[in-house]
Amino acid sequence: MTAPGSADWRRYDPPDLPRVLDAALQCFAEQGYHGTSIRDLAATAGLSVPGVYHHYRSKQEILLALMMAVMDELLARSEAALASAPDEPSARFDVLVESLLRFHMFRRQQAFVASSEIRSLAPENREAYVGRRDTQQRMIDDVVTAGVEAGVFGTPYPLDAARAVSTLCVGVASWYREDGPLAPDELVARHLVLARGLVQA
Amino acid sequence: MTAPGSADWRRYDPPDLPRVLDAALQCFAEQGYHGTSIRDLAATAGLSVPGVYHHYRSKQEILLALMMAVMDELLARSEAALASAPDEPSARFDVLVESLLRFHMFRRQQAFVASSEIRSLAPENREAYVGRRDTQQRMIDDVVTAGVEAGVFGTPYPLDAARAVSTLCVGVASWYREDGPLAPDELVARHLVLARGLVQA
Repeated sequence: MTAPGSADWRRYDPPDLPRVLDAALQCFAEQGYHGTSIRDLAATAGLSVPGVYHHYRSKQEILLALMMAVMDELLARSEAALASAPDEPSARFDVLVESLLRFHMFRRQQAFVASSEIRSLAPENREAYVGRRDTQQRMIDDVVTAGVEAGVFGTPYPLDAARAVSTLCVGVASWYREDGPLAPDELVARHLVLARGLVQA
Repeated sequence: MTAPGSADWRRYDPPDLPRVLDAALQCFAEQGYHGTSIRDLAATAGLSVPGVYHHYRSKQEILLALMMAVMDELLARSEAALASAPDEPSARFDVLVESLLRFHMFRRQQAFVASSEIRSLAPENREAYVGRRDTQQRMIDDVVTAGVEAGVFGTPYPLDAARAVSTLCVGVASWYREDGPLAPDELVARHLVLARGLVQA
């Protein structure tokens, strides 16, 4: 897991996951959780099956660790982005949206596995994961609500708009390609315009 | 597959899929394509394994048939919605968005499988599916572009906005619940406001 400092929330190095989680990311992205065996994970990680079980008790524990690592990186970057902005709703909104956009551009596989395998988490693990995801959504909710209270956002539906902002950013993971026609900064600039439209900035 | 008439695009009966595709929908939604065997499909459909092979040559053929049926229903409803509207960009935009929203509220499982299993389509099947999905996106692109040309939408980025409208509607499938706090018509009304914000209506 990357834990970027507040200066680094815009910078994306290759993800720094433990070996088994990195293998899990590849396998789950390609074949899904239920389509992946511990044997597949071991082969991809270059470990023996007992070598995988030395670190994790089960495939379920690996899925949870991977999904939590993804969410922790997202949250750390969101917090760093907010900490870097002046204490003003529009500026806070812009950096938070920018951070969410960049995460979903440069952590596409992680975003895909996290959204498609919530179904595969055992109930108590799902609760833990969804709780952390809700923390991320509340950061967006709070920034949008503050903007409405300050009179800089005109949306009559702050919480629906905040969820739509999240959807907009997450959705980028499903189509963005690094060799595509939009340079990252231009993509961010255009999607900031779209996100501001959602909150009626 | 439902092929609704132009009066019926707002109405959702339970999906009317052939037995094997209905079983595939359940299995793929729960365990993914790679986590589902033909034996699982047969058991869920109440058929023997040869009974499944009587209708389809392979699991891949079943996935393609399911994904095409989902996309065909979406396209038929979009076309019916547009045919029901006056020939005016704002009205055409509103019915198309409404239809996309309702589809993703009432065909959630279908939307989930269609978006999460594109990876599992063989290359030539993926090309066929993505082509049909692009047809849907072009309908949105055309309506947004027409609105910009008519001066009723102010977005400087019509195609990015059109993709964001699609993302907004598709995203509803990931959180909408029929027993949730928002009644369907209220959800549609609020998300029309959000979608209009994206195009700067």
